[in-house]
Amino acid sequence: MSYFKDNIGSMSPYVPGEQPAGLSGVVKLNQNENPYPPSPKALKVMRDFDGESLRLYPDPMVGRFCQAVAEALSVPVDWVLPGDGSDDLIVMIARAAAGPGRTVAYPVPTFPFYQTQAQIEGSRCEAVPVTQDYRLPLEELANANAAVTFVANPNSPTGATASADELAWLAGKLDGLLVVDEAYADFADGHALDLVASCPNVIVLRTLSKGYSLAGLRVGFGIVPPKLMDSLIKTKAIYNVGPLPAAVGAAAIADQAHHMSCVNKICAQRVFLSHELEARGSKVWPSGGNFVMVSVPRGDGRAALEALKQRNVLVRYFDKDRMRDKLRISIGTEDDSRALLAAWDDAGLGTRT
Amino acid sequence: MSYFKDNIGSMSPYVPGEQPAGLSGVVKLNQNENPYPPSPKALKVMRDFDGESLRLYPDPMVGRFCQAVAEALSVPVDWVLPGDGSDDLIVMIARAAAGPGRTVAYPVPTFPFYQTQAQIEGSRCEAVPVTQDYRLPLEELANANAAVTFVANPNSPTGATASADELAWLAGKLDGLLVVDEAYADFADGHALDLVASCPNVIVLRTLSKGYSLAGLRVGFGIVPPKLMDSLIKTKAIYNVGPLPAAVGAAAIADQAHHMSCVNKICAQRVFLSHELEARGSKVWPSGGNFVMVSVPRGDGRAALEALKQRNVLVRYFDKDRMRDKLRISIGTEDDSRALLAAWDDAGLGTRT
Repeated sequence: MSYFKDNIGSMSPYVPGEQPAGLSGVVKLNQNENPYPPSPKALKVMRDFDGESLRLYPDPMVGRFCQAVAEALSVPVDWVLPGDGSDDLIVMIARAAAGPGRTVAYPVPTFPFYQTQAQIEGSRCEAVPVTQDYRLPLEELANANAAVTFVANPNSPTGATASADELAWLAGKLDGLLVVDEAYADFADGHALDLVASCPNVIVLRTLSKGYSLAGLRVGFGIVPPKLMDSLIKTKAIYNVGPLPAAVGAAAIADQAHHMSCVNKICAQRVFLSHELEARGSKVWPSGGNFVMVSVPRGDGRAALEALKQRNVLVRYFDKDRMRDKLRISIGTEDDSRALLAAWDDAGLGTRT
Repeated sequence: MSYFKDNIGSMSPYVPGEQPAGLSGVVKLNQNENPYPPSPKALKVMRDFDGESLRLYPDPMVGRFCQAVAEALSVPVDWVLPGDGSDDLIVMIARAAAGPGRTVAYPVPTFPFYQTQAQIEGSRCEAVPVTQDYRLPLEELANANAAVTFVANPNSPTGATASADELAWLAGKLDGLLVVDEAYADFADGHALDLVASCPNVIVLRTLSKGYSLAGLRVGFGIVPPKLMDSLIKTKAIYNVGPLPAAVGAAAIADQAHHMSCVNKICAQRVFLSHELEARGSKVWPSGGNFVMVSVPRGDGRAALEALKQRNVLVRYFDKDRMRDKLRISIGTEDDSRALLAAWDDAGLGTRT
């Protein structure tokens, strides 16, 4: 007999992106990290933090951070549910709403953590292929009518972004929850925050990991309709966000000027890099995220990954259906783009025409 | 139809200890917090931390922290599983091993989070009353033979501590996991770390929240037999511990001199406070933790809680069977003890004889 549940034994673990041992000289475009430093105001809060106060337990609901979120996004403070990264919110939702006899649906390809969580809960997984042009399969997700539907919007690794109207249509068709994971929404034209007020079953997830350059801080949050909040709080670990990340995160989200400045530079760089890759004969799909999905000449994504890695440029390859002839490339600085393009040319992946 | 599972709807949320809005003038002996500041070396690591590195994702397995744990506790590094507090480890274990048809057992009274997690997983809960003198009900837990048995050792709120031999006996009787939650073991005479090598089903949990004065850092860890590690990692959120808590935690656990100095002062103060309360006619149960369970004259714990609170001293009362005539009082500094005793006397809870 195993000490663990059967579904734990049969599932595969989530495999995160590669972390090189030393970063010196490496251009790291594989984990959609922000190339710019976090808000200087947030870093000042970190430096000034009263370390001796760490002897005390924190506020379980992380009120100060939630207040900063509420002000920055113009939402009521009691709609904000803090998390140890938005991963933690995905876990809370899965624990509250997924399980045997309750289907979890999501498009594929997408962030594989939704599937991981559904499998841990023993849910049936309904993996719905994205459309031919890699967009959200709205009709098919509506037909699946799952207990929980996870939609990363913009989606990774495709970059495809559904409109708020499309998501509202989907929410209206579903009897279960629609979780709109907006990890990349900072780089997109729209967002679904308004749906939390108008649809009873929509939860929006955000993170400070991408748009706020704080992947290492581990702070995310959900925007949750008040009627759903009590149930989700039951699955929240008591003190899931400590006072130090909470204080730094609050300062970061309050510093919208720094945030927008970084976001604007990244969005401009996304245009530049897309144009340059297209000029080399690759197809680049429209992206609302801080990355692009790009086709690789001769269709061998893995070989391209290795060729770029040999030239000290890390990008992401997914050994999955419809992804083996593509790469996902994070948007860095202009220097990062130029280094990538030089490696691309040097590896013979394409020549500028 | 509910958006959530039935067991989520029917369960009660965990209720943490009270957090006063302002601490000035309040003697806070209600959450077993350490009265001494964290290691100065750990606080220096915090101040010197490179905030700009937070733009990057951390090491998922938090190797540097695990290495520091391995060195401090003389265990192999691949036995160390890091958590966002030891709560996070309890969640990982519950998700991997609890569920419908799988019983979760624990003594009562104890840390209520075990029951919370069992209920989220839809497990049957076997709450086994502690013995007449509030000790671990070894025979009854063995007879329950649950898929997961949680034993806080020392137990809270009783302070009772089972020996490693007793726990080894229990582990040998169980077909499932025995999770020994050693949150308070820093203040006890023994520990169960050796059982991880000798029993295939024992997991030991530790935290930096109590003995290391870092309740706000949110760092705990499990000592896990290698054969059980892969399954538990599957239920771990990818980046559950950030690089800042990891670095501070590593420095704190490496500073054993500071740690032992604080622990020794607290253990000495436990003797003093126990003696003074007994001299006032209360029964004080032997405690291996940084708190004592104490009987209240006239048997009204809630009234005593309120009387002390009016005098700016916070302690813990549990509205539960066999606990309504008692309080749990955290061990603070000698000044804290004297303030508690003055309030105790002033409230007429007992007079020194």
